[in-house]
Amino acid sequence: MKQSQLFTKTQKDAPKDEVSLNAQLLIRAGFVHKEMAGVYAYMPLGLRVLENIKKIVKEEMNAVGGQELMMTTLQPKEIWEKTDRWDDKKVDNWFKTKLVSGTELGVGLTHEEPVVDVVSNYLSSYKDMPFAVYQIQNKFRNELRAKSGLFRGREFLMKDMYTFSRDQKQHMEIYEKIVEAYFKVYERLGLGGITYRTYADGGIFTPRFSDEFQTLAAVGEDIIYLDEKKGIAINKEILTDENLQKLGLDRKNLVEKKAVEVGNTFHLESKYTDALDLYYVDENGEKQSIIMGCYGIGISRLMGVIAEIFSDAKGLVWPESVAPFKVHLISLGKDEEAEKIYAELQKNGIEVLFDDRDESAGKKFADADLIGIPYRVVVSEKSMQAGGVEVKKRKEEKGEIVKIEDLVRKMK
Amino acid sequence: MKQSQLFTKTQKDAPKDEVSLNAQLLIRAGFVHKEMAGVYAYMPLGLRVLENIKKIVKEEMNAVGGQELMMTTLQPKEIWEKTDRWDDKKVDNWFKTKLVSGTELGVGLTHEEPVVDVVSNYLSSYKDMPFAVYQIQNKFRNELRAKSGLFRGREFLMKDMYTFSRDQKQHMEIYEKIVEAYFKVYERLGLGGITYRTYADGGIFTPRFSDEFQTLAAVGEDIIYLDEKKGIAINKEILTDENLQKLGLDRKNLVEKKAVEVGNTFHLESKYTDALDLYYVDENGEKQSIIMGCYGIGISRLMGVIAEIFSDAKGLVWPESVAPFKVHLISLGKDEEAEKIYAELQKNGIEVLFDDRDESAGKKFADADLIGIPYRVVVSEKSMQAGGVEVKKRKEEKGEIVKIEDLVRKMK
Repeated sequence: MKQSQLFTKTQKDAPKDEVSLNAQLLIRAGFVHKEMAGVYAYMPLGLRVLENIKKIVKEEMNAVGGQELMMTTLQPKEIWEKTDRWDDKKVDNWFKTKLVSGTELGVGLTHEEPVVDVVSNYLSSYKDMPFAVYQIQNKFRNELRAKSGLFRGREFLMKDMYTFSRDQKQHMEIYEKIVEAYFKVYERLGLGGITYRTYADGGIFTPRFSDEFQTLAAVGEDIIYLDEKKGIAINKEILTDENLQKLGLDRKNLVEKKAVEVGNTFHLESKYTDALDLYYVDENGEKQSIIMGCYGIGISRLMGVIAEIFSDAKGLVWPESVAPFKVHLISLGKDEEAEKIYAELQKNGIEVLFDDRDESAGKKFADADLIGIPYRVVVSEKSMQAGGVEVKKRKEEKGEIVKIEDLVRKMK
Repeated sequence: MKQSQLFTKTQKDAPKDEVSLNAQLLIRAGFVHKEMAGVYAYMPLGLRVLENIKKIVKEEMNAVGGQELMMTTLQPKEIWEKTDRWDDKKVDNWFKTKLVSGTELGVGLTHEEPVVDVVSNYLSSYKDMPFAVYQIQNKFRNELRAKSGLFRGREFLMKDMYTFSRDQKQHMEIYEKIVEAYFKVYERLGLGGITYRTYADGGIFTPRFSDEFQTLAAVGEDIIYLDEKKGIAINKEILTDENLQKLGLDRKNLVEKKAVEVGNTFHLESKYTDALDLYYVDENGEKQSIIMGCYGIGISRLMGVIAEIFSDAKGLVWPESVAPFKVHLISLGKDEEAEKIYAELQKNGIEVLFDDRDESAGKKFADADLIGIPYRVVVSEKSMQAGGVEVKKRKEEKGEIVKIEDLVRKMK
């Protein structure tokens, strides 16, 4: 796309009330717009990043047999009363609204109850399991404070998956398969090698631990204890001798790290299915409880995490897999040559943001650094004299001259 | 996908309170789940249709330069007070909610105000225009009654586009370009030739008419008067001699038709930009008003319209462009051969739902008719003896025998 057509522009300052680094950068670079605390709109550049993250998450969820659906935001209270999660004294971050008739509705903060309600139309026999359903959808949580930008929103995009199994054995098989898929997601997002499975509190209705996926980061709000050899961690919140013994971890092998949570998976046992009266009939005609798991990845949170942990003093530094464009093509008074290169790159399926604006070299370079596209390609008198275009990775200080005829091959 | 893995199943009956044909069919076939009146969740088959419609709409909006973004559902009241659209006495179908602090929020029913607010960060000069932004997003409207299934929801998926122009000339150019794009959308959705541009009331702040896009249908709730020669219609609501004269239409050439609205486009003049204090500076340094247009297509409504108008007594009949799969492959006791065909079709990029279930031929055929995938391919003892597989279009009564080696070419 031509940058002269892009309706957003970079901004020198973020709004004064924006204290988080990820949102400050994303606002200044024109990726997001702050609607209110914890509520961000996605501009074209930001939406491209979100869509790239969604695509990776979808592909990996589909690869483990996940069936995508789309639940609703408006929620009837009846199903939530059955699990005692409607009362504001029990769940304190509901947004609620009302029909004209006065009937109270919830604004979806999670979807265990409605998913069980949907599934109850179709699931009755042991032959129907196991299966996994998931969605990528906005969630709404009435957080008292929302100061961490895209890390914790009042309105945010989430992937939530739910599994249904006939017994613990079947449940643990599908659960571990999904944990593996999570690591494939983080690897593809550029977070491989710094993201660890971390044992955490499982909640009151399961004897098992839950799993958090924690990415090491100085800005992280969580403290984890990492066994680097085993590649496994434990959240500080559950660091007791008893838990270490259960997990086969030794306190003296653990190092304290700051980390940010980029996903979590829970064993729900039969809490929600029992409460909503969903059972199955086994081979012997006996009624049995259904074991559920649930599996979350915050899509917009991931965008904030990636933005923040890879950024530098000049701006954003996107990994290739999620970048809004692969190439930032900059013309410095060489518009005719640049147009040809732009057409050639596009013809070869390479995504290009073409800075064809009537701006100074300094402004164009500063914007390119702020926006953070992985490859900057400059066409100028100087580069032409040196034999082609200057290609510089956003992560590196120095560029190299590449012949125009070699550029497509190089960028593929 | 294998049908034995699909967690939804067809159902004999729709919920008793579901009176609309589109929702009855879509529920029975497992495409949607009714959460409450006017609020539907999308099951895997339904989501595939929605995604197909979205893809077509996006491609055509991108083709006219539309820049996709994603606004927020939670809305601060301040910007809506500026246009006098916050008060429930002025706009009677808001869903409203509250922050923990007590601050009132709106649940997005449309996005003119927030879009102008976003754009005001970036737009200041005549050089910045024209441009078009759009989103595909859930809207929430607190309808008193919601009995028409996906035709009119309380929560529904909509494409809404907004244009910004420096003057009427620029506005009318972009407006007509988008009208053309709308017809490309309807053509691709299988609604070509039965969808007409229909003049309708423009609202109080413009001298112009708005345009509705009306698809002829016996179930339509709108009455239009169509000039078949000119291919243009006028909504009954504005059928006056004065309007006919303005539009150059002659009453005696008009025929009354029932139709269903599948899109609309409006001239907003500078109502919203003026109210939100967004102006531009022209070549002479003078402050000028900005002319807006807005352009809607109900994505989930379109799914309902297509479902209903193409259906027959046996079930749904999807046009190829939006069908959840292209081929419904049915094995009648020939699982080994069917598995091979399934693999071969998939390898060639043809989307297949493979009915590998242990069910009777009668049940499989009835389900295929209800689900409405365009091509039914049956592998049976009988078809093999006749020389291959039986290929039958959903729309036709009779099938034909196709050699297995010709099937891929035939289905491409």
